[in-house]
Amino acid sequence: MACLFCDIAAGSVEAHRVLQTEQLVAFLDIRPVFKGHVLLMPREHVVTLPDLPAELRDPFLAAGQQLAAAMVTGLGAQGSFVAMNNTVSQSVPHLHMHVVPRTKGDGLRGFFWPRTKYAEGEAAAFARSLVNALSQPG
Amino acid sequence: MACLFCDIAAGSVEAHRVLQTEQLVAFLDIRPVFKGHVLLMPREHVVTLPDLPAELRDPFLAAGQQLAAAMVTGLGAQGSFVAMNNTVSQSVPHLHMHVVPRTKGDGLRGFFWPRTKYAEGEAAAFARSLVNALSQPG
Repeated sequence: MACLFCDIAAGSVEAHRVLQTEQLVAFLDIRPVFKGHVLLMPREHVVTLPDLPAELRDPFLAAGQQLAAAMVTGLGAQGSFVAMNNTVSQSVPHLHMHVVPRTKGDGLRGFFWPRTKYAEGEAAAFARSLVNALSQPG
Repeated sequence: MACLFCDIAAGSVEAHRVLQTEQLVAFLDIRPVFKGHVLLMPREHVVTLPDLPAELRDPFLAAGQQLAAAMVTGLGAQGSFVAMNNTVSQSVPHLHMHVVPRTKGDGLRGFFWPRTKYAEGEAAAFARSLVNALSQPG
C-alpha cells in the first residue's frame, strides 16, 4: 500500500523536515493553517492514535512538547495548537500530530464554537457509556 | 491560586468523571463540541503541553489513546478529534487534552480550513527557524 507519509519518512518524497529521529519525523505541512504548521509522525505506519505502539508514546509526546515549545521560541508565536484527527477528517491515514503556531486574534478560536449542551441526565448517560467502554479489555 | 481543574481533580468541584488514576483525571466538558467530549488532565497543575513532566508523558498519552478508542467503542463515533490549546484559546490554564467524538459530515471539518500557502523560499525559512529552535538546549 502506497502511503505518502511513509514515503516522506523514507526520504523518497521531499519535505521540509524539522526533526528526525530513529522513530519519528516532523515536517512542514504544505498547506499550513498558519505558516510554521508542522506534522509529527512515527516512521512506523500506524493509522490512528490508539494504534501507536506503547514504546512510541513517550518519544512521540516528547517531540510534540519540543515542537510546541519551538512554535514560541522559534517562530515568535504566543502559543500552539496541537491536534490529531483519527479517521474522520484524517487526510492521510498515517498517524500525524498537527503542531500549529497560534497568536491571539488569529481567527482559529472561532472554530471551537458553537458548543452544544446536555439535556437533563444526558451527560451522566454519556459518562456511563464511556466508563463502560474504558472498562472493556483493550 | 484557584484553579477550576485542580478543584475538579481534588473532587471539590463536581464533574462527570470518566477516568481517574493516581496521576490523571478525565471528565466531560460541560460545553461539548459534540456530546461525549472529554477533557483529560494531569492532577498536577501544569499549564501547557511543554510543561508536562516527562514521567507523565506515557500515562497521559496512553489515557488519550484509551479515550480516543472509547469514542468509537462506547459512543458509536466513527473517529475522534484529539487536541490541546497551549496558551492561546486555552480557556483554563491547566493542561487538558480534548477528546471529541467525530462522525463524517458533523461539520467540524471546516475547522482546519482555509489553509494558506508559502511563497517561494518561505517554507525553507520557517523550517530553519524551527530547526534552530529545536537545537537550543531546553
